[in-house]
Amino acid sequence: MSAVDPRKLVAEFLGTGLLVAGVVGSGIMAERLSDDVAVQLLANAFATAGVLLALILAMQPVSGAHFNPVVTMAERVRGTVTTGELVGYTIAQITGGIAGVMAANVMFDLAAINISDKDRSGFNLMFSEGIATIGLLLVIYGVVTAGRPSLAAATVAGYIGGAYFFTSSTSFANPAVTIARTMSDSFAGIDPGNAVGFVASQLVAAAIGIPLLRWLFANNPDHA
Amino acid sequence: MSAVDPRKLVAEFLGTGLLVAGVVGSGIMAERLSDDVAVQLLANAFATAGVLLALILAMQPVSGAHFNPVVTMAERVRGTVTTGELVGYTIAQITGGIAGVMAANVMFDLAAINISDKDRSGFNLMFSEGIATIGLLLVIYGVVTAGRPSLAAATVAGYIGGAYFFTSSTSFANPAVTIARTMSDSFAGIDPGNAVGFVASQLVAAAIGIPLLRWLFANNPDHA
Amino acid sequence: MSAVDPRKLVAEFLGTGLLVAGVVGSGIMAERLSDDVAVQLLANAFATAGVLLALILAMQPVSGAHFNPVVTMAERVRGTVTTGELVGYTIAQITGGIAGVMAANVMFDLAAINISDKDRSGFNLMFSEGIATIGLLLVIYGVVTAGRPSLAAATVAGYIGGAYFFTSSTSFANPAVTIARTMSDSFAGIDPGNAVGFVASQLVAAAIGIPLLRWLFANNPDHA
Amino acid sequence: MSAVDPRKLVAEFLGTGLLVAGVVGSGIMAERLSDDVAVQLLANAFATAGVLLALILAMQPVSGAHFNPVVTMAERVRGTVTTGELVGYTIAQITGGIAGVMAANVMFDLAAINISDKDRSGFNLMFSEGIATIGLLLVIYGVVTAGRPSLAAATVAGYIGGAYFFTSSTSFANPAVTIARTMSDSFAGIDPGNAVGFVASQLVAAAIGIPLLRWLFANNPDHA
Repeated sequence: MSAVDPRKLVAEFLGTGLLVAGVVGSGIMAERLSDDVAVQLLANAFATAGVLLALILAMQPVSGAHFNPVVTMAERVRGTVTTGELVGYTIAQITGGIAGVMAANVMFDLAAINISDKDRSGFNLMFSEGIATIGLLLVIYGVVTAGRPSLAAATVAGYIGGAYFFTSSTSFANPAVTIARTMSDSFAGIDPGNAVGFVASQLVAAAIGIPLLRWLFANNPDHA
Repeated sequence: MSAVDPRKLVAEFLGTGLLVAGVVGSGIMAERLSDDVAVQLLANAFATAGVLLALILAMQPVSGAHFNPVVTMAERVRGTVTTGELVGYTIAQITGGIAGVMAANVMFDLAAINISDKDRSGFNLMFSEGIATIGLLLVIYGVVTAGRPSLAAATVAGYIGGAYFFTSSTSFANPAVTIARTMSDSFAGIDPGNAVGFVASQLVAAAIGIPLLRWLFANNPDHA
Repeated sequence: MSAVDPRKLVAEFLGTGLLVAGVVGSGIMAERLSDDVAVQLLANAFATAGVLLALILAMQPVSGAHFNPVVTMAERVRGTVTTGELVGYTIAQITGGIAGVMAANVMFDLAAINISDKDRSGFNLMFSEGIATIGLLLVIYGVVTAGRPSLAAATVAGYIGGAYFFTSSTSFANPAVTIARTMSDSFAGIDPGNAVGFVASQLVAAAIGIPLLRWLFANNPDHA
Repeated sequence: MSAVDPRKLVAEFLGTGLLVAGVVGSGIMAERLSDDVAVQLLANAFATAGVLLALILAMQPVSGAHFNPVVTMAERVRGTVTTGELVGYTIAQITGGIAGVMAANVMFDLAAINISDKDRSGFNLMFSEGIATIGLLLVIYGVVTAGRPSLAAATVAGYIGGAYFFTSSTSFANPAVTIARTMSDSFAGIDPGNAVGFVASQLVAAAIGIPLLRWLFANNPDHA
């Protein structure tokens, strides 16, 4: 396993950390300010989309701005990252996500780690995470294989902002973010027992989705 | 009728399916979370705009990202698709839309098909669908004939996000989406009897709008 | 006065008409759906920004997508339109705006013309319209003189979406739209008596702002 | 200290002024229209993001559109502005911000200067401002060093829109804006005593963040 550029790992660590701080922090803020749960979710989705847009635009030239182990897996299949980078990125994303949830908790004057007991169980939520993850891979794959990576930020921000509302699971679609969200006892949290099912659904969706997308976008100019 | 690229049909099927899942899923979510109908519609519009932006950017290089039989008709007149593609796209869009509403229903733990009894009748709603459809064709035609297709996603997302609010019919403006929405007994649904009037209005609007737009944009560089 | 391209006049008529339908229609919709006035204004601003983005992108290659007599005046000073076009555009914008408010009223099952009695008076509102108008001219001038006209749509949409909230007058900033809004007895309307003051403020602001902006952006590459 | 282009100083003065008018004006408007504090903050964030997008796009070709002394410091380190420009920009930003808050107060029929007594104290808010400021510098640095300055406007608008919700301090992240907000006794204000801590946190964050970002983005093409 060859050496991985440390700048790439720091970019994935900071990017995933700020993304999770964005997701969890805006969830805590929204829950404190409103009694209308749709308004809470709108604030959470608006903030997440804004932060995703900015972080992807900023970090893309350094690391590709994956911030998500499932995206790095898809890029490994496509051949744009090495196996060493897959391992390094995944560790950076998970630890970055944990640092991000701790930062959000401290910003809102909570204990740095608050294990969540928010129930997110049931077949329909597992199915929802599967749809959410395949959709996310589809929109990313579509723009990057077409040689339009500068459009990836708007694509992902638009998709995730929408998917917070259109999926019953509110579209975690990211194992690193899912692990981090077990440490926030808030609107944005997830019981660690349920997180196992969420991550499993995300991985199954990747296993189904990646071959389908490789076929669908095979004629795009940057397909590899 | 020559063979149609199966990737194009799958792109239209998946794109229309995810679009309808976005429209219907966010409608169900919003209705469950809030009592303020404007907040529900804001969530629905925000989610629809985000998903449209992402799906058009992703699918455009494969199929053109029409997701709407009326748009495919306009492109047929412009000569960018064949008659075989018009037929194939329309079937893919309608079946994709139905798959999308079923996915949304299952994600929210409902029966896969829920026939709507939501009344959407009256001359003013028919007129509203006509305005909505002509406006949609106008903004698409304006950017694609100007040789700026990469701007189509933001254009359509902005227009539809706005049109959810400024038309009394909430701007279905798409026969495939209208058919699919008869199968959601929710905020986003439509009684099948009313759907006939909506689709008729959309087709009349296309018949009026397409010649007008061909004249209006005749001097644009990619007009054909 | 030389002949003016009829496509340009139709583009300004349709664009201003759909813009006004967007402003007024979303105002009526929001007022019917919510009791929270900030939610109403958020819906109105979201819809207006979305429609502006789409219409400017679509119409820019035909007419420049002014939709506003004050913008056409600034372009006349800059030399990109003729005096004949200034007159023709202004007429198209005013009549288009009136057609747009009538379309919105009919879509919402109201009489086509509803004279408003919504009071919008006071020095602070006149001052607010002045700030709103200078700001609008500033952001348009900044992007078009820099040779980046394709950014004008996002610039204007972002500015007006924000200005609905940050100005006490909710930023009409457009004589054609102001005249049209006298014909909507809704959240979005304005008493005709007050409209005189609004239009006067907009014109004074243009007289102050245009020379300032010509100096400020004099070194931009497309300044003329 | 060589002479500084007066157009640059006027651009920073007007840009910061309109930005502060946007922040404070939308705060006053939102507070008057709604009782739901999340809706108020959503309106404030939506308006701020829209105005930032427009002002950065418009002013970037003239002055770089910093509107923030911390950003100008980072650009001084990067070598894109002179020491004279650092001093001149900072003065223009602070005085512009004060003019902006006065304009907002007058638009809403308040005394031009209203000293705030809004308490914003506590270690967690200081920590929050530090995170907010490092994040802001990170996203700006990422896009400008990559030779993509035209993406800075969307990046900053997305980031700040999100950061209003995900930081407990609502992300001032700007000494000039912080000083101006002491003069608004509203939702958007800050007690002058607390402003000292906010500005100190922003400066400490810049001192920590700038070297980190210089390392992180050292391989970007426009890094200097």
